[in-house]
Amino acid sequence: MEGGKVMSEKRNVLVGQSGGPSSAINATLAGVVEQAFASEKVGKIYGMVHGIKGVLEDWIIDIGQPLSGPAELGRLIHTPSSALGSCRHKLKSVQDDPEAYKTIFERFAQYNIGYFVYIGGNDSMDTVKKLSEYAKEHGIDVAIMGAPKTIDNDLHGMDHSPGFASAAKYISTTFAEIWCDAKVYDYPTVTIVETMGRHVGWLCAASAVARAQGGAPHLIYLPEVPFDDAKFLEDLKNQMALRPAVVVAISEGIKYANGTYVCEDESNVRVDAFGHKTLSGACRVLEGLITNSIDCKVRCVDLSVLQRCAGHLASSVDLHESRILGSISLSRALDGISGEVSVLNRISDNPYSVEYSTVPACTIANHEKAVPREWINQRGNDVTEEFIKYVTPLLGGSFGSDLSEGYPKHFRF
Amino acid sequence: MEGGKVMSEKRNVLVGQSGGPSSAINATLAGVVEQAFASEKVGKIYGMVHGIKGVLEDWIIDIGQPLSGPAELGRLIHTPSSALGSCRHKLKSVQDDPEAYKTIFERFAQYNIGYFVYIGGNDSMDTVKKLSEYAKEHGIDVAIMGAPKTIDNDLHGMDHSPGFASAAKYISTTFAEIWCDAKVYDYPTVTIVETMGRHVGWLCAASAVARAQGGAPHLIYLPEVPFDDAKFLEDLKNQMALRPAVVVAISEGIKYANGTYVCEDESNVRVDAFGHKTLSGACRVLEGLITNSIDCKVRCVDLSVLQRCAGHLASSVDLHESRILGSISLSRALDGISGEVSVLNRISDNPYSVEYSTVPACTIANHEKAVPREWINQRGNDVTEEFIKYVTPLLGGSFGSDLSEGYPKHFRF
Repeated sequence: MEGGKVMSEKRNVLVGQSGGPSSAINATLAGVVEQAFASEKVGKIYGMVHGIKGVLEDWIIDIGQPLSGPAELGRLIHTPSSALGSCRHKLKSVQDDPEAYKTIFERFAQYNIGYFVYIGGNDSMDTVKKLSEYAKEHGIDVAIMGAPKTIDNDLHGMDHSPGFASAAKYISTTFAEIWCDAKVYDYPTVTIVETMGRHVGWLCAASAVARAQGGAPHLIYLPEVPFDDAKFLEDLKNQMALRPAVVVAISEGIKYANGTYVCEDESNVRVDAFGHKTLSGACRVLEGLITNSIDCKVRCVDLSVLQRCAGHLASSVDLHESRILGSISLSRALDGISGEVSVLNRISDNPYSVEYSTVPACTIANHEKAVPREWINQRGNDVTEEFIKYVTPLLGGSFGSDLSEGYPKHFRF
Repeated sequence: MEGGKVMSEKRNVLVGQSGGPSSAINATLAGVVEQAFASEKVGKIYGMVHGIKGVLEDWIIDIGQPLSGPAELGRLIHTPSSALGSCRHKLKSVQDDPEAYKTIFERFAQYNIGYFVYIGGNDSMDTVKKLSEYAKEHGIDVAIMGAPKTIDNDLHGMDHSPGFASAAKYISTTFAEIWCDAKVYDYPTVTIVETMGRHVGWLCAASAVARAQGGAPHLIYLPEVPFDDAKFLEDLKNQMALRPAVVVAISEGIKYANGTYVCEDESNVRVDAFGHKTLSGACRVLEGLITNSIDCKVRCVDLSVLQRCAGHLASSVDLHESRILGSISLSRALDGISGEVSVLNRISDNPYSVEYSTVPACTIANHEKAVPREWINQRGNDVTEEFIKYVTPLLGGSFGSDLSEGYPKHFRF
């Protein structure tokens, strides 16, 4: 059956997830599924496995059936990472790869897809933009909508990105705990904790919430401000004069004024038995720098994937908002809207409240939002009260995952 | 006032914490404090700051006052790491350092200490043994007791070490979450996760609880079995034939048959800008090994201090038992017993129950308990069902820490 011909019949939903995992991306999927269950227009609910690659390679599964009970849906919401699998596939322009578009829309017809929701970051919103433009130009009746997601918080057009708050909550909690650990000895120690954030420092900045409670970190360095070795050592010595243990938060993407990433510094070269060179994180470079300048014990902690998959610490604000955004994306698709992305914007800090809407995918695709310079202190080694006021309401709420048997129980398709 | 002269008068308690931090060591401190509050024999409750170093250097604080309310005591129990600070100070023999003993017992007299409780691992129990022998030989009436603690689970004379269960719960939860994260892509990936455990593999083995739920890790390597590069690559290829994503758990202390630690392998040398050589973890060595042998993406995750300070994931079984052990140690000291350590032993797995007692400190001091070889599979790349049966009851119970503002609220003296 060709899409768009029989409007009175039920048509199917196709939903997928893309880009790096987060603790809230499955809540958005759950929102889409709940909205689909609630609509008389929807027949089956399909999921693409590994995002748009699953459409290209015909790996599409029925997800309505395994998610038909409230227990399953609840478990999905509390399961971190992309339950449908993900991909980093960037769809080329229709001029460069017309076959891909042909395949995708043939697949839509094959599965009688009327409503398509893609959950992801700015690359995924580029896919939404391209597919919706193609559908419009070719008169194909499939509503193509996006739902936002990224722990990096770098999406334009919204107050914050779904997934960010849970990662931020993991980071604030972890810094509070690392401070308990770091301060037990009476000799000078420096603990450098590296967060994700290649281009923007939102995640690293979230560590300041723990510090605002009287703990660590004592210094915070973001990619938004050029990093300077000499200034860093000076900052560190000033902090070490105040207490034996100092904790430093750095973003993986901190870079020097000349644009070189700190992690690419020539000192950060490990040569393996085969002569191959590999790089570790920026924290290893700073470890070397400190070891050669200050007499103290230095420890590196890389929060790695833990910050994006610690579902047991997810923010209930984040899960709630992510679910609604998924629901709205499908709801608008059911209304015939296409080429847009659901977003949220803050109405007030206290009480915290947001309003939801949709914006054209081009608003979001291929842009990055950095931490405003005025939310970073002048010295470039901390964030301001304005940032803490911004981030704190996002972290609220206990998760409520059942850890009674000693581990979280995750949903699996 | 000389200790032991006036038995009818109230005498004071001195308590300290030593060795590496854990998520349960403050619960043991709380148990000591609760027992002290409950006894008519006790005057003041003092804490030594930075363990026995605090006694030597006269850094002793009144902890009864700041802990007098139930809210403070509750917050202390839920605060990870050593609230009184810690040390790695190993007391020499009385022959080698008579001055230290003289100073310590003068300090006891100065503060009218009748009851001394030291919370720590096997080095700390050596301190208990030495001080109690000295007191006995010199006819000094101070009851010297130990309370056990170590995340490594290597203490002899008890079913498991307080602190281990919380670290094990962190590890099982984290592996469940890492598996959600690792499996999202469709290309071959290997994630190597390194746990603590320089000499014994208990912590690394705890990852098997997550795997028993159908997830990761797929391979587990402990220090108890010699590590072999060729066998490891063979194991890995076998696992990669089953699924694109493979997760490997390794103990930091894995070593080759010749006794060399894997992390000391010559390939694991980073040379900094000053020509200094530094070592990373064993996971970096295996990363290099895999990169040069198998075409796949490799990621290293080092759980670092997070596994010993993630108080928000503490096991309620662990907190409960740790508290009771602290209480028992002081209770026995009040009964005039000295030179012993409180311990627990398991009566049954299902329902899980333990019984508490005390044993001479020499039973525990300076010994290490390894994972029994029969709890590791023959190939040496996994643990058996017996281990999972042993560890699972220890992980139970939700923590109940208040994360409603987005971070845990920790107690501080």
